[in-house]
Amino acid sequence: MALTQSSCNKAFGGEQKVFKHYSSVLKCDMNFGVYIPPQAASEKVPVFYWLSGLTCTEQNFVTKAGAQRYAAEHGVMIVAPDTSPRGCNIEGEDDSWDFGSGAGFYVDATEEKWKTNYNMYSYITKELPELINANFPADPEIKSISGHSMGGHGALMCALRNPGLYRCASAFAPICNPIHCPWGEKAFSGYLGSNKDAWKEYDSCELVKKYQGPPLKILIDQGLADTFYPHQLLPENFVQACSNNNLVSVTLRKHEGYDHSYYFVSSFIGDHIAFHTKC
Amino acid sequence: MALTQSSCNKAFGGEQKVFKHYSSVLKCDMNFGVYIPPQAASEKVPVFYWLSGLTCTEQNFVTKAGAQRYAAEHGVMIVAPDTSPRGCNIEGEDDSWDFGSGAGFYVDATEEKWKTNYNMYSYITKELPELINANFPADPEIKSISGHSMGGHGALMCALRNPGLYRCASAFAPICNPIHCPWGEKAFSGYLGSNKDAWKEYDSCELVKKYQGPPLKILIDQGLADTFYPHQLLPENFVQACSNNNLVSVTLRKHEGYDHSYYFVSSFIGDHIAFHTKC
Repeated sequence: MALTQSSCNKAFGGEQKVFKHYSSVLKCDMNFGVYIPPQAASEKVPVFYWLSGLTCTEQNFVTKAGAQRYAAEHGVMIVAPDTSPRGCNIEGEDDSWDFGSGAGFYVDATEEKWKTNYNMYSYITKELPELINANFPADPEIKSISGHSMGGHGALMCALRNPGLYRCASAFAPICNPIHCPWGEKAFSGYLGSNKDAWKEYDSCELVKKYQGPPLKILIDQGLADTFYPHQLLPENFVQACSNNNLVSVTLRKHEGYDHSYYFVSSFIGDHIAFHTKC
Repeated sequence: MALTQSSCNKAFGGEQKVFKHYSSVLKCDMNFGVYIPPQAASEKVPVFYWLSGLTCTEQNFVTKAGAQRYAAEHGVMIVAPDTSPRGCNIEGEDDSWDFGSGAGFYVDATEEKWKTNYNMYSYITKELPELINANFPADPEIKSISGHSMGGHGALMCALRNPGLYRCASAFAPICNPIHCPWGEKAFSGYLGSNKDAWKEYDSCELVKKYQGPPLKILIDQGLADTFYPHQLLPENFVQACSNNNLVSVTLRKHEGYDHSYYFVSSFIGDHIAFHTKC
Protein backbone atom coordinates (compact mmCIF):
# COMPACT_ATOMS: atom_id res chain seq x y z
CA MET A 1 0.00 0.00 0.00
CA ALA A 2 2.64 2.49 -1.06
CA LEU A 3 1.59 6.12 -1.13
CA THR A 4 2.94 8.74 -3.50
CA GLN A 5 2.55 12.35 -2.43
CA SER A 6 1.28 14.51 -5.30
CA SER A 7 1.11 17.84 -3.48
CA CYS A 8 1.54 19.46 -0.09
CA ASN A 9 0.39 22.96 0.81
CA LYS A 10 0.48 24.48 4.25
CA ALA A 11 -2.94 25.80 5.26
CA PHE A 12 -4.23 27.11 8.59
CA GLY A 13 -1.15 25.84 10.36
CA GLY A 14 -1.61 22.29 9.07
CA GLU A 15 -0.94 20.60 5.75
CA GLN A 16 -3.26 19.88 2.84
CA LYS A 17 -1.80 16.94 0.97
CA VAL A 18 -2.89 14.83 -1.98
CA PHE A 19 -1.72 11.26 -2.44
CA LYS A 20 -1.91 8.64 -5.15
CA HIS A 21 -1.92 4.91 -4.40
CA TYR A 22 -2.82 1.62 -5.99
CA SER A 23 -6.10 0.33 -4.60
CA SER A 24 -6.31 -3.42 -4.31
CA VAL A 25 -10.12 -3.45 -4.11
CA LEU A 26 -10.57 -1.08 -7.07
CA LYS A 27 -7.69 -2.46 -9.12
CA CYS A 28 -6.54 0.98 -10.21
CA ASP A 29 -4.67 4.03 -8.97
CA MET A 30 -6.67 6.35 -6.76
CA ASN A 31 -6.13 9.87 -5.44
CA PHE A 32 -7.25 11.22 -2.10
CA GLY A 33 -6.81 14.48 -0.24
CA VAL A 34 -5.86 14.56 3.41
CA TYR A 35 -5.74 17.62 5.62
CA ILE A 36 -3.51 17.12 8.61
CA PRO A 37 -4.33 19.64 11.34
CA PRO A 38 -1.60 21.23 13.47
CA GLN A 39 -2.70 19.19 16.50
CA ALA A 40 -1.56 16.01 14.72
CA ALA A 41 2.05 17.01 15.37
CA SER A 42 1.65 15.94 18.99
CA GLU A 43 -1.30 13.51 19.14
CA LYS A 44 -3.48 11.18 17.12
CA VAL A 45 -6.54 13.01 15.88
CA PRO A 46 -10.11 12.05 14.87
CA VAL A 47 -10.74 11.53 11.17
CA PHE A 48 -13.58 13.08 9.17
CA TYR A 49 -14.21 11.18 5.93
CA TRP A 50 -15.76 13.27 3.16
CA LEU A 51 -17.49 11.69 0.17
CA SER A 52 -17.98 13.96 -2.84
CA GLY A 53 -20.77 14.07 -5.36
CA LEU A 54 -21.25 13.25 -9.02
CA THR A 55 -18.47 14.41 -11.41
CA CYS A 56 -16.17 15.37 -8.55
CA THR A 57 -12.62 14.27 -7.94
CA GLU A 58 -10.79 14.60 -4.65
CA GLN A 59 -10.01 18.20 -5.62
CA ASN A 60 -13.46 19.77 -5.34
CA PHE A 61 -13.78 19.55 -1.60
CA VAL A 62 -10.11 20.24 -1.04
CA THR A 63 -10.09 23.49 -3.03
CA LYS A 64 -13.63 24.81 -2.60
CA ALA A 65 -15.14 23.85 0.75
CA GLY A 66 -12.89 25.93 3.00
CA ALA A 67 -12.99 23.11 5.53
CA GLN A 68 -9.33 23.34 6.52
CA ARG A 69 -10.03 26.30 8.77
CA TYR A 70 -12.51 24.34 10.87
CA ALA A 71 -10.43 21.18 10.84
CA ALA A 72 -7.52 23.19 12.25
CA GLU A 73 -9.79 24.76 14.84
CA HIS A 74 -11.15 21.41 16.06
CA GLY A 75 -8.06 19.26 15.50
CA VAL A 76 -9.67 16.95 12.96
CA MET A 77 -8.06 15.19 10.01
CA ILE A 78 -10.07 15.32 6.78
CA VAL A 79 -9.84 12.53 4.22
CA ALA A 80 -11.44 13.25 0.85
CA PRO A 81 -11.19 10.45 -1.73
CA ASP A 82 -12.06 10.47 -5.41
CA THR A 83 -15.60 9.42 -6.36
CA SER A 84 -14.94 6.33 -8.50
CA PRO A 85 -12.27 4.17 -10.03
CA ARG A 86 -10.69 5.83 -13.08
CA GLY A 87 -9.13 4.62 -16.28
CA CYS A 88 -10.17 0.99 -15.96
CA ASN A 89 -10.79 0.55 -19.68
CA ILE A 90 -14.37 -0.58 -19.12
CA GLU A 91 -16.48 0.02 -22.21
CA GLY A 92 -18.69 3.05 -21.58
CA GLU A 93 -17.03 4.08 -18.31
CA ASP A 94 -16.69 7.69 -19.48
CA ASP A 95 -19.98 8.00 -21.38
CA SER A 96 -22.16 9.52 -18.64
CA TRP A 97 -21.63 12.18 -16.00
CA ASP A 98 -23.92 10.28 -13.62
CA PHE A 99 -22.64 6.74 -14.14
CA GLY A 100 -19.17 5.23 -14.38
CA SER A 101 -16.19 7.56 -13.89
CA GLY A 102 -16.97 10.19 -11.25
CA ALA A 103 -20.11 8.32 -10.23
CA GLY A 104 -19.15 5.22 -8.26
CA PHE A 105 -22.13 5.68 -5.90
CA TYR A 106 -20.18 4.07 -3.04
CA VAL A 107 -21.52 0.56 -3.76
CA ASP A 108 -19.76 -2.74 -4.45
CA ALA A 109 -20.88 -3.60 -7.97
CA THR A 110 -22.17 -7.09 -8.69
CA GLU A 111 -22.75 -6.76 -12.42
CA GLU A 112 -20.05 -8.56 -14.38
CA LYS A 113 -18.82 -5.54 -16.30
CA TRP A 114 -18.24 -3.37 -13.21
CA LYS A 115 -17.57 -5.75 -10.33
CA THR A 116 -13.81 -5.99 -10.77
CA ASN A 117 -13.28 -2.27 -10.21
CA TYR A 118 -16.39 -0.55 -8.93
CA ASN A 119 -16.12 -1.46 -5.26
CA MET A 120 -16.22 1.95 -3.69
CA TYR A 121 -18.13 0.69 -0.64
CA SER A 122 -15.27 -1.59 0.37
CA TYR A 123 -12.75 1.08 -0.52
CA ILE A 124 -14.40 3.70 1.70
CA THR A 125 -15.24 1.51 4.67
CA LYS A 126 -12.23 -0.80 4.72
CA GLU A 127 -9.24 -0.19 2.47
CA LEU A 128 -9.01 3.58 2.82
CA PRO A 129 -9.35 3.69 6.64
CA GLU A 130 -6.69 0.99 6.93
CA LEU A 131 -4.42 3.05 4.71
CA ILE A 132 -5.08 6.20 6.71
CA ASN A 133 -4.58 4.53 10.08
CA ALA A 134 -1.33 2.95 8.92
CA ASN A 135 0.20 6.08 7.40
CA PHE A 136 -1.09 9.14 9.26
CA PRO A 137 -1.50 10.26 12.88
CA ALA A 138 -5.15 9.17 12.91
CA ASP A 139 -7.00 7.95 15.97
CA PRO A 140 -8.38 4.67 14.59
CA GLU A 141 -11.19 4.70 17.15
CA ILE A 142 -12.69 8.06 16.22
CA LYS A 143 -14.04 8.25 12.70
CA SER A 144 -17.00 10.11 11.31
CA ILE A 145 -18.39 10.50 7.82
CA SER A 146 -20.04 13.18 5.74
CA GLY A 147 -20.63 13.98 2.09
CA HIS A 148 -22.47 15.90 -0.58
CA SER A 149 -25.25 14.68 -2.89
CA MET A 150 -24.13 11.23 -4.11
CA GLY A 151 -21.54 11.46 -1.33
CA GLY A 152 -24.27 12.32 1.17
CA HIS A 153 -25.98 9.10 0.20
CA GLY A 154 -22.63 7.36 0.68
CA ALA A 155 -22.11 8.85 4.13
CA LEU A 156 -25.56 7.96 5.48
CA MET A 157 -25.47 4.51 3.95
CA CYS A 158 -21.97 3.64 5.18
CA ALA A 159 -22.88 4.75 8.71
CA LEU A 160 -26.15 2.79 8.74
CA ARG A 161 -24.56 -0.39 7.40
CA ASN A 162 -21.76 -0.29 9.97
CA PRO A 163 -23.12 0.39 13.46
CA GLY A 164 -20.42 1.84 15.68
CA LEU A 165 -17.88 2.34 12.91
CA TYR A 166 -18.49 6.10 12.74
CA ARG A 167 -19.32 8.18 15.77
CA CYS A 168 -21.82 10.14 13.71
CA ALA A 169 -22.77 11.06 10.15
CA SER A 170 -23.87 14.13 8.28
CA ALA A 171 -24.70 15.15 4.76
CA PHE A 172 -25.30 18.07 2.42
CA ALA A 173 -28.20 17.62 0.00
CA PRO A 174 -27.85 13.81 0.12
CA ILE A 175 -29.56 11.38 -2.24
CA CYS A 176 -31.60 9.92 0.60
CA ASN A 177 -33.71 7.33 -1.16
CA PRO A 178 -31.78 6.24 -4.27
CA ILE A 179 -34.07 3.33 -5.07
CA HIS A 180 -36.81 5.89 -5.76
CA CYS A 181 -35.00 8.60 -7.72
CA PRO A 182 -33.64 8.74 -11.28
CA TRP A 183 -29.96 9.04 -10.34
CA GLY A 184 -30.17 6.09 -7.97
CA GLU A 185 -32.22 3.93 -10.30
CA LYS A 186 -29.72 4.43 -13.11
CA ALA A 187 -26.70 3.72 -10.92
CA PHE A 188 -28.11 0.79 -8.97
CA SER A 189 -29.49 -0.97 -12.05
CA GLY A 190 -26.13 -0.51 -13.75
CA TYR A 191 -23.92 -1.63 -10.87
CA LEU A 192 -26.26 -4.04 -9.05
CA GLY A 193 -28.56 -5.39 -11.75
CA SER A 194 -32.31 -5.67 -11.85
CA ASN A 195 -32.95 -7.33 -8.47
CA LYS A 196 -34.31 -4.49 -6.36
CA ASP A 197 -33.79 -6.38 -3.12
CA ALA A 198 -30.06 -5.90 -3.70
CA TRP A 199 -30.62 -2.17 -4.14
CA LYS A 200 -32.15 -1.91 -0.68
CA GLU A 201 -28.82 -2.80 0.89
CA TYR A 202 -27.52 0.58 -0.22
CA ASP A 203 -30.62 2.70 0.35
CA SER A 204 -30.57 4.77 3.55
CA CYS A 205 -34.35 4.82 3.91
CA GLU A 206 -34.39 1.03 3.82
CA LEU A 207 -31.28 0.60 5.96
CA VAL A 208 -32.59 2.78 8.79
CA LYS A 209 -35.57 0.43 9.19
CA LYS A 210 -33.31 -2.37 10.35
CA TYR A 211 -30.53 -0.37 12.02
CA GLN A 212 -29.56 -1.87 15.35
CA GLY A 213 -26.54 -0.61 17.19
CA PRO A 214 -25.36 2.34 19.18
CA PRO A 215 -27.54 5.46 18.92
CA LEU A 216 -26.60 7.35 15.76
CA LYS A 217 -26.92 11.10 15.32
CA ILE A 218 -27.28 12.47 11.81
CA LEU A 219 -27.24 16.09 10.60
CA ILE A 220 -28.57 16.92 7.13
CA ASP A 221 -28.50 20.33 5.44
CA GLN A 222 -30.66 20.96 2.39
CA GLY A 223 -30.88 24.13 0.29
CA LEU A 224 -34.36 25.13 -0.78
CA ALA A 225 -33.15 26.61 -4.08
CA ASP A 226 -31.47 23.30 -4.97
CA THR A 227 -32.96 22.24 -8.29
CA PHE A 228 -32.33 18.56 -7.48
CA TYR A 229 -34.16 18.69 -4.17
CA PRO A 230 -37.70 17.72 -5.12
CA HIS A 231 -37.10 14.72 -7.38
CA GLN A 232 -33.60 13.37 -6.70
CA LEU A 233 -32.82 13.96 -3.02
CA LEU A 234 -36.00 13.20 -1.03
CA PRO A 235 -34.73 14.05 2.49
CA GLU A 236 -38.26 13.97 3.91
CA ASN A 237 -38.45 10.25 3.08
CA PHE A 238 -35.39 9.72 5.25
CA VAL A 239 -36.74 11.77 8.14
CA GLN A 240 -39.95 9.76 7.97
CA ALA A 241 -38.02 6.48 7.95
CA CYS A 242 -35.93 7.57 10.96
CA SER A 243 -39.07 8.42 12.93
CA ASN A 244 -39.71 4.70 13.29
CA ASN A 245 -36.30 3.87 14.74
CA ASN A 246 -35.43 5.35 18.13
CA LEU A 247 -31.75 4.54 17.67
CA VAL A 248 -31.33 7.03 14.84
CA SER A 249 -31.94 10.72 15.41
CA VAL A 250 -31.83 12.97 12.37
CA THR A 251 -31.85 16.77 12.20
CA LEU A 252 -32.85 18.12 8.80
CA ARG A 253 -32.18 21.83 8.32
CA LYS A 254 -33.67 23.54 5.28
CA HIS A 255 -32.00 26.73 4.07
CA GLU A 256 -33.83 29.37 2.09
CA GLY A 257 -32.06 30.40 -1.10
CA TYR A 258 -29.18 27.91 -1.05
CA ASP A 259 -28.49 25.75 -4.11
CA HIS A 260 -26.60 22.49 -4.74
CA SER A 261 -23.15 24.07 -5.16
CA TYR A 262 -20.02 24.19 -3.06
CA TYR A 263 -21.04 27.70 -2.00
CA PHE A 264 -23.76 25.93 -0.03
CA VAL A 265 -21.31 23.36 1.34
CA SER A 266 -18.78 26.02 2.32
CA SER A 267 -21.45 28.01 4.17
CA PHE A 268 -22.28 25.17 6.55
CA ILE A 269 -19.25 22.87 6.61
CA GLY A 270 -18.12 24.58 9.80
CA ASP A 271 -21.35 23.51 11.50
CA HIS A 272 -20.81 19.94 10.34
CA ILE A 273 -17.26 19.69 11.58
CA ALA A 274 -18.37 21.12 14.93
CA PHE A 275 -21.28 18.61 15.01
CA HIS A 276 -18.92 15.72 14.37
CA THR A 277 -16.66 16.94 17.16
CA LYS A 278 -19.45 17.08 19.71
CA CYS A 279 -21.58 14.06 18.80
CA MET B 1 -22.62 50.08 -18.80
CA ALA B 2 -25.09 47.20 -18.92
CA LEU B 3 -24.35 44.25 -16.70
CA THR B 4 -25.27 40.64 -17.46
CA GLN B 5 -25.44 38.30 -14.50
CA SER B 6 -23.65 35.01 -15.24
CA SER B 7 -24.23 33.28 -11.91
CA CYS B 8 -25.63 33.80 -8.44
CA ASN B 9 -25.04 31.50 -5.48
CA LYS B 10 -26.12 32.15 -1.94
CA ALA B 11 -23.19 31.90 0.47
CA PHE B 12 -22.92 32.75 4.16
CA GLY B 13 -26.24 34.57 4.07
CA GLY B 14 -25.20 36.82 1.18
CA GLU B 15 -24.84 36.30 -2.55
CA GLN B 16 -21.80 35.45 -4.65
CA LYS B 17 -22.48 36.73 -8.15
CA VAL B 18 -20.51 36.93 -11.38
CA PHE B 19 -21.24 39.53 -14.02
CA LYS B 20 -20.16 40.21 -17.58
CA HIS B 21 -20.05 43.70 -19.05
CA TYR B 22 -18.49 45.62 -21.91
CA SER B 23 -15.60 47.72 -20.69
CA SER B 24 -15.16 51.00 -22.50
CA VAL B 25 -11.55 51.45 -21.37
CA LEU B 26 -10.55 47.88 -22.27
CA LYS B 27 -12.68 47.63 -25.42
CA CYS B 28 -13.78 44.10 -24.64
CA ASP B 29 -16.15 42.11 -22.45
CA MET B 30 -14.99 41.58 -18.90
CA ASN B 31 -16.12 39.36 -16.04
CA PHE B 32 -16.00 40.19 -12.36
CA GLY B 33 -17.16 38.51 -9.20
CA VAL B 34 -19.01 40.40 -6.49
CA TYR B 35 -19.94 39.09 -3.08
CA ILE B 36 -22.82 40.99 -1.56
CA PRO B 37 -22.94 40.47 2.20
CA PRO B 38 -26.23 40.15 4.08
CA GLN B 39 -25.78 43.61 5.61
CA ALA B 40 -26.17 45.16 2.14
CA ALA B 41 -29.90 44.40 2.29
CA SER B 42 -30.34 47.34 4.64
CA GLU B 43 -27.35 49.67 4.18
CA LYS B 44 -24.55 50.63 1.84
CA VAL B 45 -21.43 48.67 2.66
CA PRO B 46 -17.67 49.18 2.24
CA VAL B 47 -16.05 47.61 -0.81
CA PHE B 48 -12.94 45.45 -0.79
CA TYR B 49 -11.35 45.25 -4.25
CA TRP B 50 -9.32 42.12 -4.88
CA LEU B 51 -6.75 41.89 -7.68
CA SER B 52 -5.69 38.40 -8.65
CA GLY B 53 -2.36 37.12 -9.89
CA LEU B 54 -0.89 35.80 -13.11
CA THR B 55 -3.04 33.28 -15.05
CA CYS B 56 -6.09 33.89 -12.86
CA THR B 57 -9.58 34.85 -13.90
CA GLU B 58 -12.23 36.27 -11.58
CA GLN B 59 -13.00 32.68 -10.54
CA ASN B 60 -9.87 31.82 -8.58
CA PHE B 61 -10.49 34.12 -5.65
CA VAL B 62 -14.23 33.56 -5.77
CA THR B 63 -14.00 29.77 -5.52
CA LYS B 64 -10.79 29.19 -3.56
CA ALA B 65 -10.14 31.97 -1.06
CA GLY B 66 -13.03 31.32 1.31
CA ALA B 67 -13.38 35.08 1.76
CA GLN B 68 -17.18 35.15 1.75
CA ARG B 69 -17.33 34.02 5.35
CA TYR B 70 -15.30 36.99 6.54
CA ALA B 71 -17.05 39.43 4.24
CA ALA B 72 -20.38 38.32 5.72
CA GLU B 73 -18.97 38.65 9.23
CA HIS B 74 -17.71 42.19 8.67
CA GLY B 75 -20.37 43.42 6.24
CA VAL B 76 -17.99 44.05 3.36
CA MET B 77 -18.64 43.72 -0.37
CA ILE B 78 -15.88 41.98 -2.33
CA VAL B 79 -15.23 42.84 -5.96
CA ALA B 80 -12.88 40.49 -7.82
CA PRO B 81 -12.24 41.36 -11.49
CA ASP B 82 -10.46 39.36 -14.16
CA THR B 83 -6.73 39.99 -14.58
CA SER B 84 -6.56 41.30 -18.15
CA PRO B 85 -8.57 42.02 -21.26
CA ARG B 86 -9.43 38.83 -23.15
CA GLY B 87 -10.04 37.90 -26.75
CA CYS B 88 -8.80 41.18 -28.23
CA ASN B 89 -7.20 39.53 -31.25
CA ILE B 90 -3.82 41.07 -30.54
CA GLU B 91 -1.04 39.03 -32.09
CA GLY B 92 0.68 37.02 -29.34
CA GLU B 93 -1.85 37.86 -26.61
CA ASP B 94 -2.14 34.20 -25.61
CA ASP B 95 1.49 33.17 -26.12
CA SER B 96 2.75 33.61 -22.54
CA TRP B 97 1.35 32.84 -19.11
CA ASP B 98 3.10 35.92 -17.70
CA PHE B 99 2.30 38.46 -20.42
CA GLY B 100 -0.89 39.30 -22.32
CA SER B 101 -4.05 37.39 -21.40
CA GLY B 102 -4.19 36.75 -17.66
CA ALA B 103 -1.30 39.11 -17.09
CA GLY B 104 -2.48 42.71 -17.49
CA PHE B 105 -0.26 43.85 -14.62
CA TYR B 106 -2.73 46.63 -13.76
CA VAL B 107 -0.99 49.24 -15.93
CA ASP B 108 -2.26 51.44 -18.76
CA ALA B 109 -0.18 50.31 -21.74
CA THR B 110 1.51 52.87 -23.93
CA GLU B 111 3.02 50.59 -26.54
CA GLU B 112 1.05 50.76 -29.79
CA LYS B 113 0.13 47.11 -29.93
CA TRP B 114 -1.38 46.99 -26.44
CA LYS B 115 -2.59 50.49 -25.65
CA THR B 116 -6.08 50.13 -27.10
CA ASN B 117 -7.04 47.33 -24.73
CA TYR B 118 -4.51 46.86 -21.95
CA ASN B 119 -5.63 49.64 -19.63
CA MET B 120 -6.21 47.68 -16.46
CA TYR B 121 -5.05 50.61 -14.28
CA SER B 122 -7.89 52.80 -15.49
CA TYR B 123 -10.30 49.91 -15.34
CA ILE B 124 -9.49 49.10 -11.71
CA THR B 125 -9.26 52.64 -10.36
CA LYS B 126 -12.01 54.34 -12.39
CA GLU B 127 -14.36 52.34 -14.59
CA LEU B 128 -14.95 49.40 -12.28
CA PRO B 129 -15.62 51.47 -9.12
CA GLU B 130 -18.06 53.64 -11.07
CA LEU B 131 -19.82 50.53 -12.25
CA ILE B 132 -19.94 49.09 -8.74
CA ASN B 133 -21.15 52.29 -7.15
CA ALA B 134 -23.87 52.69 -9.76
CA ASN B 135 -25.19 49.13 -9.63
CA PHE B 136 -24.66 47.75 -6.12
CA PRO B 137 -25.29 48.87 -2.53
CA ALA B 138 -21.70 50.07 -2.18
CA ASP B 139 -20.61 52.94 0.05
CA PRO B 140 -18.66 54.99 -2.53
CA GLU B 141 -16.61 56.63 0.23
CA ILE B 142 -15.20 53.45 1.75
CA LYS B 143 -13.01 51.43 -0.57
CA SER B 144 -9.96 49.37 0.12
CA ILE B 145 -7.76 47.20 -2.08
CA SER B 146 -5.84 43.96 -1.80
CA GLY B 147 -4.41 41.33 -4.08
CA HIS B 148 -2.10 38.42 -4.65
CA SER B 149 1.27 38.35 -6.44
CA MET B 150 0.77 40.44 -9.62
CA GLY B 151 -2.45 41.60 -7.96
CA GLY B 152 -0.55 42.48 -4.80
CA HIS B 153 1.62 44.76 -6.93
CA GLY B 154 -1.60 46.18 -8.37
CA ALA B 155 -3.10 46.81 -4.94
CA LEU B 156 -0.05 48.57 -3.49
CA MET B 157 0.53 50.57 -6.66
CA CYS B 158 -3.09 51.70 -7.06
CA ALA B 159 -3.20 52.82 -3.42
CA LEU B 160 0.09 54.71 -3.64
CA ARG B 161 -0.84 56.48 -6.88
CA ASN B 162 -4.22 57.59 -5.52
CA PRO B 163 -3.85 59.09 -2.03
CA GLY B 164 -7.13 58.91 -0.17
CA LEU B 165 -8.92 56.76 -2.73
CA TYR B 166 -8.57 53.61 -0.61
CA ARG B 167 -8.71 53.63 3.16
CA CYS B 168 -5.94 51.05 3.26
CA ALA B 169 -4.18 48.41 1.19
CA SER B 170 -2.89 44.91 1.72
CA ALA B 171 -1.25 42.17 -0.29
CA PHE B 172 -0.32 38.51 -0.35
CA ALA B 173 3.12 37.77 -1.77
CA PRO B 174 3.08 40.95 -3.88
CA ILE B 175 5.51 41.79 -6.65
CA CYS B 176 6.86 44.76 -4.70
CA ASN B 177 9.55 46.08 -6.99
CA PRO B 178 8.57 45.11 -10.55
CA ILE B 179 11.21 47.25 -12.21
CA HIS B 180 13.83 44.99 -10.63
CA CYS B 181 12.37 41.51 -11.14
CA PRO B 182 11.97 39.28 -14.22
CA TRP B 183 8.15 39.27 -14.27
CA GLY B 184 7.98 43.04 -13.97
CA GLU B 185 10.73 43.70 -16.48
CA LYS B 186 9.01 41.53 -19.08
CA ALA B 187 5.60 43.08 -18.52
CA PHE B 188 6.69 46.69 -18.24
CA SER B 189 8.94 46.55 -21.29
CA GLY B 190 6.10 44.97 -23.25
CA TYR B 191 3.33 47.31 -22.15
CA LEU B 192 5.29 50.49 -21.45
CA GLY B 193 8.32 50.30 -23.75
CA SER B 194 11.99 50.78 -23.03
CA ASN B 195 11.86 54.08 -21.12
CA LYS B 196 12.39 53.02 -17.54
CA ASP B 197 11.21 56.34 -16.17
CA ALA B 198 7.74 55.32 -17.31
CA TRP B 199 8.09 52.03 -15.44
CA LYS B 200 8.66 53.87 -12.16
CA GLU B 201 5.12 55.21 -12.29
CA TYR B 202 3.89 51.68 -11.60
CA ASP B 203 6.55 50.51 -9.17
CA SER B 204 5.52 50.56 -5.52
CA CYS B 205 9.07 51.02 -4.24
CA GLU B 206 9.42 54.11 -6.41
CA LEU B 207 5.93 55.42 -5.74
CA VAL B 208 6.28 55.28 -1.99
CA LYS B 209 9.23 57.70 -2.20
CA LYS B 210 6.97 60.46 -3.42
CA TYR B 211 3.72 59.51 -1.70
CA GLN B 212 2.05 62.54 -0.16
CA GLY B 213 -1.42 62.26 1.25
CA PRO B 214 -3.32 60.84 4.15
CA PRO B 215 -1.40 58.30 6.23
CA LEU B 216 -1.64 54.90 4.55
CA LYS B 217 -1.51 51.58 6.39
CA ILE B 218 -0.37 48.51 4.46
CA LEU B 219 -0.38 44.85 5.51
CA ILE B 220 1.72 42.33 3.56
CA ASP B 221 1.82 38.57 4.11
CA GLN B 222 4.63 36.53 2.62
CA GLY B 223 5.11 32.78 2.75
CA LEU B 224 8.67 31.61 3.38
CA ALA B 225 8.23 28.46 1.26
CA ASP B 226 7.11 30.58 -1.70
CA THR B 227 9.49 29.74 -4.52
CA PHE B 228 8.96 33.18 -6.11
CA TYR B 229 9.87 35.05 -2.94
CA PRO B 230 13.59 35.60 -3.31
CA HIS B 231 13.82 36.79 -6.92
CA GLN B 232 10.38 38.01 -8.04
CA LEU B 233 8.64 39.49 -5.01
CA LEU B 234 11.25 41.49 -3.05
CA PRO B 235 9.07 42.64 -0.13
CA GLU B 236 12.10 43.78 1.85
CA ASN B 237 12.79 46.40 -0.81
CA PHE B 238 9.33 47.81 -0.18
CA VAL B 239 9.73 47.82 3.61
CA GLN B 240 13.03 49.65 3.14
CA ALA B 241 11.43 52.20 0.83
CA CYS B 242 8.56 52.80 3.27
CA SER B 243 10.99 53.44 6.11
CA ASN B 244 11.82 56.77 4.48
CA ASN B 245 8.23 58.00 4.29
CA ASN B 246 6.42 58.59 7.57
CA LEU B 247 3.06 58.70 5.82
CA VAL B 248 3.19 55.03 4.86
CA SER B 249 3.33 52.32 7.51
CA VAL B 250 3.82 48.78 6.35
CA THR B 251 3.59 45.55 8.33
CA LEU B 252 5.32 42.62 6.65
CA ARG B 253 4.48 39.24 8.15
CA LYS B 254 6.57 36.26 7.10
CA HIS B 255 5.03 32.81 7.49
CA GLU B 256 7.09 29.66 7.87
CA GLY B 257 6.12 26.88 5.45
CA TYR B 258 3.52 28.74 3.37
CA ASP B 259 3.81 28.78 -0.41
CA HIS B 260 2.42 30.97 -3.21
CA SER B 261 -0.92 29.16 -3.54
CA TYR B 262 -4.49 29.97 -2.62
CA TYR B 263 -4.05 27.74 0.44
CA PHE B 264 -1.79 30.51 1.69
CA VAL B 265 -4.30 33.20 0.72
CA SER B 266 -7.20 31.34 2.33
CA SER B 267 -5.26 30.93 5.57
CA PHE B 268 -4.85 34.67 6.07
CA ILE B 269 -7.61 36.37 4.08
CA GLY B 270 -9.64 36.65 7.27
CA ASP B 271 -6.88 38.74 8.84
CA HIS B 272 -6.81 40.99 5.79
CA ILE B 273 -10.54 41.62 5.72
CA ALA B 274 -10.44 42.39 9.45
CA PHE B 275 -7.47 44.73 8.87
CA HIS B 276 -9.35 46.60 6.14
CA THR B 277 -12.33 46.96 8.45
CA LYS B 278 -10.30 48.47 11.27
CA CYS B 279 -7.78 50.63 9.44
